[in-house]
Amino acid sequence: MSTQYVLELIGTYFFAISGALAVADVENDLFGASFTGFLTAIGGGTLRDLILDSHPLVWIGDPYVLYSVFAGVLTAIIFFKWVIKLKKTLFLFDTMGISLFTVLGVEKALYFGAPDEVAVIMGIFSAVMGGVIRDTLSNVTPVILRKEIYASACMIGAISYLILNKFHVERELNLIISASLIASVRVLAVRYKVYLPALGSWR
Amino acid sequence: MSTQYVLELIGTYFFAISGALAVADVENDLFGASFTGFLTAIGGGTLRDLILDSHPLVWIGDPYVLYSVFAGVLTAIIFFKWVIKLKKTLFLFDTMGISLFTVLGVEKALYFGAPDEVAVIMGIFSAVMGGVIRDTLSNVTPVILRKEIYASACMIGAISYLILNKFHVERELNLIISASLIASVRVLAVRYKVYLPALGSWR
Amino acid sequence: MSTQYVLELIGTYFFAISGALAVADVENDLFGASFTGFLTAIGGGTLRDLILDSHPLVWIGDPYVLYSVFAGVLTAIIFFKWVIKLKKTLFLFDTMGISLFTVLGVEKALYFGAPDEVAVIMGIFSAVMGGVIRDTLSNVTPVILRKEIYASACMIGAISYLILNKFHVERELNLIISASLIASVRVLAVRYKVYLPALGSWR
Repeated sequence: MSTQYVLELIGTYFFAISGALAVADVENDLFGASFTGFLTAIGGGTLRDLILDSHPLVWIGDPYVLYSVFAGVLTAIIFFKWVIKLKKTLFLFDTMGISLFTVLGVEKALYFGAPDEVAVIMGIFSAVMGGVIRDTLSNVTPVILRKEIYASACMIGAISYLILNKFHVERELNLIISASLIASVRVLAVRYKVYLPALGSWR
Repeated sequence: MSTQYVLELIGTYFFAISGALAVADVENDLFGASFTGFLTAIGGGTLRDLILDSHPLVWIGDPYVLYSVFAGVLTAIIFFKWVIKLKKTLFLFDTMGISLFTVLGVEKALYFGAPDEVAVIMGIFSAVMGGVIRDTLSNVTPVILRKEIYASACMIGAISYLILNKFHVERELNLIISASLIASVRVLAVRYKVYLPALGSWR
Repeated sequence: MSTQYVLELIGTYFFAISGALAVADVENDLFGASFTGFLTAIGGGTLRDLILDSHPLVWIGDPYVLYSVFAGVLTAIIFFKWVIKLKKTLFLFDTMGISLFTVLGVEKALYFGAPDEVAVIMGIFSAVMGGVIRDTLSNVTPVILRKEIYASACMIGAISYLILNKFHVERELNLIISASLIASVRVLAVRYKVYLPALGSWR
């Protein structure tokens, strides 16, 4: 089992938890929560694979991806009482998810021969589109539009991956460094309330 | 003409009606209603075919699918006054739509060699994604997230199809049994107010 | 460089501006605006290409499409103060975008051997889906559902393209005539407050 594969399963698991919990305050049922967890977990990767024309899609060719989703949804259901109290936990799961999916998306795009700009975008897409779907379904302004370092952290990590790759840093090491960079940027930005200026904030 | 084909046309027709009527209370025009009818009718199948990499998409390769959509939208427009009064009618059209699309989705996924778990998901997807698109466009909480037996009914029918298939029940019979099962489960659940517990409803 | 190609770049540029500005009043940051600009600009074309199974997608195979998006987003950011004041400007950018994308979508669908009905739909899709995504993300009722000549203008232009094509009008001339027709219909409809009746407006 390659590192990429294991990371994809872990990222999927985290995203499924975050998706299942997202609709907890909406009037919803267990199945609705599972469905949102599923869409959140596979949304970004599915879009990435459709855009790159990579078939079969990861979750179709490999049942373990689905099992990761089921595990995530189950975790959300069983440990609901504990997990939901800790808003920080939810934040953490989402952060782990986007960090892993960004670097995996970049890597996959490069593998399919995409140019650097496209690889960066595919990384961001894989990471954030699951959350965009989750937020759209639960009628929340997508986190990507909120004044918070989010997709920008993904972009930094994607570019870091590309640069380290040019310097022939070993693939697995690069995956871990760049994913950690994304998580750190996001966590530090939230901790120290750093954010990007709003459009039209200067005159 | 195969049974599957006829059922797909009928399901498309029902979904188009339900989609066109969905936006009736929003400030919209005839074209907006037609467009929503169209997206609702072809949304689930398009997503299914994109995910399975089945080209050309059903509605591109076969004009009769488009004619079904047109017929559904026209029905909605012409009989609007009668149809909209009967909330039950709308509910019925939607129920017919999801019942047919679930079993057709399962069948198509199996035909493309998908494993059982994926086939169940593809069945649910084909059935509910059109409605998710419809509800998202008209700014309603997607029915799939509401506390109502909906996607769960689809799941029951999808699993029923797989089981009967293992026991070599004839295909066309299986299509009809499993689709009827979905419709019955949904209708009975609504009639007797059965629903799944919400996430975190136990302590 | 073909006319089609140049028009696609220009349409992309206009859509990126309109997308980036759309979220200006939501609490959002620069990156959110860029992302919405990006999705708006490439959304319709991406969907068109996925549906037609045309790979690589335009913006993946050709970096200039991405540069058009970047240029549009930059324009929105730098000239924000001026541009946002002029609601008419935003309307104009959107109108230019849909006019160009409609005829390009029709043309591409015909090139892929789609029947006429499908070509019309693909034209409308390419034109309006970027805006639908933009409006859904910023929690606005999609313009296509509002009582305003919008997708109907696209339909008129798409049909005009098909008819002129049957009469062997030269391709580039046809592109320009039909795109201008769309823009004129929309502008005149808004100017003289012409709109389609709402569903169920007659008894």
